[in-house]
This record gives sequence, C-alpha cells and structure tokens, in this order.
Amino acid sequence: MRLRRKPWAEEEIQAAPQLVIQHPEQLKGGWHEHFGNRNPIHIEVGTGKGRFVTEMAEAHPQTNYIGVELQTSVIAMALRRVKESGAENVRLLNQNVADLWRFFIPGEIERIYINFCDPWPKRRHEKRRLTYKDFLHMYHLLLGPEKEIHFKTDNEGLFEYSLNSFSDFGCRLKNITFDLHMSPFEGNVMTEYEEKFAKKGQRIYRCEAVLPDVPRPQETFDG
Amino acid sequence: MRLRRKPWAEEEIQAAPQLVIQHPEQLKGGWHEHFGNRNPIHIEVGTGKGRFVTEMAEAHPQTNYIGVELQTSVIAMALRRVKESGAENVRLLNQNVADLWRFFIPGEIERIYINFCDPWPKRRHEKRRLTYKDFLHMYHLLLGPEKEIHFKTDNEGLFEYSLNSFSDFGCRLKNITFDLHMSPFEGNVMTEYEEKFAKKGQRIYRCEAVLPDVPRPQETFDG
Repeated sequence: MRLRRKPWAEEEIQAAPQLVIQHPEQLKGGWHEHFGNRNPIHIEVGTGKGRFVTEMAEAHPQTNYIGVELQTSVIAMALRRVKESGAENVRLLNQNVADLWRFFIPGEIERIYINFCDPWPKRRHEKRRLTYKDFLHMYHLLLGPEKEIHFKTDNEGLFEYSLNSFSDFGCRLKNITFDLHMSPFEGNVMTEYEEKFAKKGQRIYRCEAVLPDVPRPQETFDG
Repeated sequence: MRLRRKPWAEEEIQAAPQLVIQHPEQLKGGWHEHFGNRNPIHIEVGTGKGRFVTEMAEAHPQTNYIGVELQTSVIAMALRRVKESGAENVRLLNQNVADLWRFFIPGEIERIYINFCDPWPKRRHEKRRLTYKDFLHMYHLLLGPEKEIHFKTDNEGLFEYSLNSFSDFGCRLKNITFDLHMSPFEGNVMTEYEEKFAKKGQRIYRCEAVLPDVPRPQETFDG
C-alpha cells in the first residue's frame, strides 16, 4: 500500500515525539525506564492505523505496547487514535521492521504480534514476508527463548507458509485456528483489516509460535 | 463404515495367516525376525483396501509395512491386493488401532502413517480421533523420540485439530501443506479415498509430526 504523501501526517508526527519515538536507537536497553515501569513490552509489527495496539493497551494496562509502521501517513492515523485513547502504555515507531534489532537489546521485548502482514505471494519475494526465517532469527534476538509470536492473517497461503517457517525454525505452535472468529478463542482484538475481512465472511487464520531455546539448523525439504 | 458381513472375507483371511497375522501379540519383540531382516517397520493405521501400504511396499522394498484395519471385509480386499502385488514386505493386522501397544515392544516401529482416518467431528467423540493425545502417547511408546508420524486427511477440521494435538504433545511439525496435490511434495502414494476425493477437486491436507523426547505436560487453553 503506497499512499500519497500527506504533509499533515509529517507535521502531526513531529509534534508528538513522546508518542512517535523519533530516535528509538537512543532508547536501546532503556525502554523500561522510558515507560517508567518494569511491565512487559509487546511489539506489533505493521501496526497500520493502530486499532489493535490501542485497544490492546486499553485492555491490558499492565503491558507496554509499541506499534511499528513504515507508512508515515498510516502511522499518523494510528497516532490520532492513540491520542484519543489517552492510553499511556503505547508508543509508535515510524520504522521498517527490518531495522528493529537496532532499537532493543536482547530480551528487552516480551512478545511480538504480526497481524495481516503483506503475504508477498510470489516465490521470489519470500524474503520480504515477516515470517521468513531471517525475521524469525531477528525476533529471537529481541525476545529470547520461550517467548511468543502471535500471528494473524486472512491469507491462507501465507498461513501455511508461516506454520512451516515457524516449525522449521524450531518453534512449538499453539492455539492454531483456521477460523478465528468461529473458534473458542477469547479476548481477540480486531485490526481494521480484520474487521473488514470478517464482515465479508472471510476467514481469519491465527496461531501462536513459542520460540525455541536455540533456532534449529535449517534443513532441506526431504520429501 | 459398517459393511455387511462377508463370509468369503473371513475365509480368505484364515487361509493367509502368513499375510494377515492372526496372533500378533506372539510376535511382540520379534517382528524383525519375522520379516527376516533389520529393515525399519512402518505401520499404516486404518489401512482400508490396502492400496497405500501395498504401493509403498513396492516403492520401498527396504522398508517393512504393516497395515492395520479393523473391518474384516475391508482388510480382505487389502489382502487380495497384497497377494496380487507379490510384495514380501507387507503384513496386515485385522485389529483395533487401540490395541497396537500389545503387539510391539517400545521402539520396534520406525514410523506411523495415519491416512484419512474417521474425523469424528462431534466434540464428545474427540477421544476416538486417531490424533487424540492418548493415541499420541501410545504411538510415542511404539516409536520413541524423534520418530515421525505422517498424517493425511481431506477433513479440514480434523487437520486443524491434529496440528494442535501434535503441537500440544510436543511434536515438531514438518512439511505442512493445505493442498497436497498442488504442493511440491514428491513421492506421494495415494489411498483409495484420496484418489476419489482428489478427483472431485477436494483438497488433501498433510503434515509430518516429529515426536518429542518426552511428551509435554498437557496445558489448558490459555487464550
């Protein structure tokens, strides 16, 4: 999604440096101090217009949330939502997910949410998928062993790919569902996309991946 | 599937005790001796009319196969197929899968195939599903750590259930596919059911589950 440049977005972001962190690398190792507590920090990658991260922050005041979104005009919408909410346990990063390792020390993050990321269906774009093994290595660095990645998508192909990618990495999978809104799962907070898809009657796939102590050596497809 | 009693089936089975083993408990711990070699032994549970186990045996002469099927009139069809094939590395058991632990010592089996087992969709019948945790404990006893269960089904609900059941048990999953016949998987041998479903354009789900060193303690659904 490439949106037109919106000058208002840039302005609003610049005016709220306490919510959209401008130099996150300067907080590396100091995020708990920044939040003013020792509560766990959860990251949502590809946070879009911020509904998920904001509602999660409201529902879980004892957790700190950081939403990461590259599109400036989109994160500006998220910023508005966070401001309206008044939740004090949310921050936003106008950054590329690929750069996350620069902003946190190992173990500083407790959990990562990946919600409706771009499926990049073409084989040659596999490396861009946020569940590609190189990203899993990076998440493992941020989170450490036994921590969880929570993944939702409406794209069946991406879901199948991601189950394999998580498993091949050595993750244990939990709470796999092929139809989240028909499942007994409680406490689901929808993203903007999710509501749109769900209204169309499309299914939402979800799973949790528990990171291994040590990533598995990659093996080739053995038939 | 409850078929009418067919006297010819009983007769043909009785006449072929070298192929349909009548007292498998007597071979406990002696299966390799029975086969006359140290080749690995693979079991198919719910072997039906025997196409899979027979074609696998033809394709993999260095592996011994045991097909397990409770329905007498069905296993009699499998027997005919095995006889026609002439493959010497197949045996059949006219037994209930729940009794398998009586016939083998721990580690005597190298792999289990579960193909198109009854999905038992009603919640109250969960314990009858061949991927229910109690069955996984029994397979773990027969196979031991790091051995594999290969699972195919056309039933999406059973597939979702089984992915969770395998994962909760502590299995690592491999080669998960939501559409086997469109996947790059090579060397697939179809069952009778599979061909019928595939011809209708229905999808086949498949995965491999690698057994853990020790089964995980069961945890409750934690949302």
